[in-house]
Amino acid sequence: MHAELDGTAIDRRTHVVVLGGGFAGLAACRRLNDPRVRVTLVDRQNHHLFQPLLYQVATAGLAGPDIAQPLRHIFSDQENVTTLMDEVNRVDLDGRRVELGHGALGYDYLIVALGARTGYFGHDEWVRHAPGLKTLAEATHLRRELLLAFERAETTSDPAERDRLLNFVIVGGGPTGVETAGAIAELARRVLVADFRRIDPGRTHVHLIEAAPKLLSMFTPEQSEYTRRRLEQMGVTVHLNAPVSEVGAGFVVAGGQRLESALTIWAAGVEGSAVTRTLADAPLDRGGRIEVSPDLSLPGRREVLAAGDVVTLVDAKGVRVPGLAPAATQMGAHAAKQILADLDRRERSPFVYVDKGSMATIGRSTAVARVFDMDWKGLPAWLLWMSVHLMFLMGLRNRIGVFLNWIWAYCRWQRGARIIVDTRSPRPEERLER
Amino acid sequence: MHAELDGTAIDRRTHVVVLGGGFAGLAACRRLNDPRVRVTLVDRQNHHLFQPLLYQVATAGLAGPDIAQPLRHIFSDQENVTTLMDEVNRVDLDGRRVELGHGALGYDYLIVALGARTGYFGHDEWVRHAPGLKTLAEATHLRRELLLAFERAETTSDPAERDRLLNFVIVGGGPTGVETAGAIAELARRVLVADFRRIDPGRTHVHLIEAAPKLLSMFTPEQSEYTRRRLEQMGVTVHLNAPVSEVGAGFVVAGGQRLESALTIWAAGVEGSAVTRTLADAPLDRGGRIEVSPDLSLPGRREVLAAGDVVTLVDAKGVRVPGLAPAATQMGAHAAKQILADLDRRERSPFVYVDKGSMATIGRSTAVARVFDMDWKGLPAWLLWMSVHLMFLMGLRNRIGVFLNWIWAYCRWQRGARIIVDTRSPRPEERLER
Repeated sequence: MHAELDGTAIDRRTHVVVLGGGFAGLAACRRLNDPRVRVTLVDRQNHHLFQPLLYQVATAGLAGPDIAQPLRHIFSDQENVTTLMDEVNRVDLDGRRVELGHGALGYDYLIVALGARTGYFGHDEWVRHAPGLKTLAEATHLRRELLLAFERAETTSDPAERDRLLNFVIVGGGPTGVETAGAIAELARRVLVADFRRIDPGRTHVHLIEAAPKLLSMFTPEQSEYTRRRLEQMGVTVHLNAPVSEVGAGFVVAGGQRLESALTIWAAGVEGSAVTRTLADAPLDRGGRIEVSPDLSLPGRREVLAAGDVVTLVDAKGVRVPGLAPAATQMGAHAAKQILADLDRRERSPFVYVDKGSMATIGRSTAVARVFDMDWKGLPAWLLWMSVHLMFLMGLRNRIGVFLNWIWAYCRWQRGARIIVDTRSPRPEERLER
Repeated sequence: MHAELDGTAIDRRTHVVVLGGGFAGLAACRRLNDPRVRVTLVDRQNHHLFQPLLYQVATAGLAGPDIAQPLRHIFSDQENVTTLMDEVNRVDLDGRRVELGHGALGYDYLIVALGARTGYFGHDEWVRHAPGLKTLAEATHLRRELLLAFERAETTSDPAERDRLLNFVIVGGGPTGVETAGAIAELARRVLVADFRRIDPGRTHVHLIEAAPKLLSMFTPEQSEYTRRRLEQMGVTVHLNAPVSEVGAGFVVAGGQRLESALTIWAAGVEGSAVTRTLADAPLDRGGRIEVSPDLSLPGRREVLAAGDVVTLVDAKGVRVPGLAPAATQMGAHAAKQILADLDRRERSPFVYVDKGSMATIGRSTAVARVFDMDWKGLPAWLLWMSVHLMFLMGLRNRIGVFLNWIWAYCRWQRGARIIVDTRSPRPEERLER
């Protein structure tokens, strides 16, 4: 038996449990600001993370707290939301209960918005050598390994080792891969170049690997080609038509070619949260994502809806909904609206994705964007990218902080977070627990 | 045999190796900006840390990168300084070599500025239950545990556990202990209080434990009493004359009283770096600090000098030099000047500490300060404390960042870094290495 966390049994309001505090979960909670509803938001983290800027934490441009906002602070003024920081172990669909790390929660409605995790196409063992970029912990780890590679290269007396340490491989030519590759190349060639005495960070090799014949599949061929050319000018070697066949300690084999790698970053695939496997009879795709009904409910379970990257869906207009923040936000709001429709005894409606466009930054003063059927590239796209990201970043304080960081980086060619936090302890007996 | 890291054998300049990039090491490197000298600075971290504000990282007021500056960036314009990020294993005084993790370094002069580490008065086993506050890793760990205690209290269904989780014990009534206790009390009672639904963070118990009869031993009795009174008003229980006799999982015994503790922070003692034990015949005090000659050299070893918290010294005017940042800076510069005096064939001089005062903040709008023989308390002392800390913080970018954070915190009762970075990984097989 589980402890019942939900101590308000006499509460007559409809209890909606929202699993996940990403873009979809937040949008759902906000839309559920209704006196007939109480909401419990559960997330394993205490914060909402603005994932589109996570690569800047990994490449020492921003500090973690700049792009994160405590969930319970976001909802401090929305009194019908209770936030719990806990693990989701299992969903008991028949019992209408969610089993958490510290108890269980009954629900009237459930919104599953658990997002995606890095997927390795069946090669989960590669995670050891090629971590993904989905959480603050991963970004901090990558920042540490990236900066350490330069430090080790400066310290070593072995020339072969020195060369090896200046090779970085990014797998995946989508927005995250492109942005990360560009940011590492600029870090090495422009930011670090004056600070070392023995090595020349300008000789860093950054490899960007893509299995398909073009980068940024959702953009026009011209934009993809522009991106490739700009990356090459910045010192990134772009490998197209190069599926990865092996990942090991210090190397990657892609398109038959073996590449040395001091640090490999996996930005190539996503799959649904592991919790989806516990959703009993819910239909899942190969990546573990939930195949929902048009209204975002589970087939045959009107009281369970899903939203965000955990969902795979072709919408009512025949468009495959992409794994992007705006799509997650739209789905989260839609799922909440279906619950309110039930309370109003109105009919539910099918979800229709409104494509507001997509964008990817390449480097300083250069980006590509597709917005309202217009194609942008270069400086205008970059300014657009910055404005949109600042606008959607949560919290005035974070916006000011990120904006000042960007201005500073632009004017001074500096990055503010070049700090290696050593999680090892000064004394062996002193290893901090957890 | 060790690899010789020092590849510039034909360099005729005097080679000074500086161990440690804290206040003393930095001051020494800067003072050694001389064409006859080349400097190698070695530190286990890649950054200089502004320790006086470290408690604000631990209490979610600032992000780590706000108070750290990459060492090699600090010296990017001083071309005679080479920075190495490495461990110091041993000093071979006769061979005039330092053994590092990745090789060895010969020296003409050595400046040992390795600082202090948390000391437990012979009870090293207490470190597991009462970590110190000396590094960014420790501060991040404490921030995580502090915020997690509130999250766990909100989640648990056990009332006794809930009460236990809202108890925090800080051991040591010096500036760090006072500042940390005040910051935790304000965090709980003013910042977090609106964000929880099930617990009342206002009922948090913060205990500050001091073995001596007064807090802040370097201040006047009036100031110490003022500090105690203000802390009590803020909700901190101050225990004086209460030496700690036992520290365990979830409790502390102090002055014969057993206190429950969800998180214990040790701010009570320091001892010299472990490396000092390898300094052969160097005289050490009980805490492992080096007893230097008046000019800061090791007795009988003119080419080896020590500076900062690693030193124990009564100066030429009979004043015991305190373990404070200004004293470390003065000693670092003095050690460097002795080397330049040798090169100029001038006589060495004894070190004389110039006491510019000391200060400790208690909480919002309240602090104590002793500056130029004047005693300050309350708002004037707090404004003075802020100005001085901003002035001495390194880097314009960090100053702007910290200043804006403080303004924000003052106006909005918020803290910008309430982010728990979960270093555990989403999949068991995915634990990131190192």
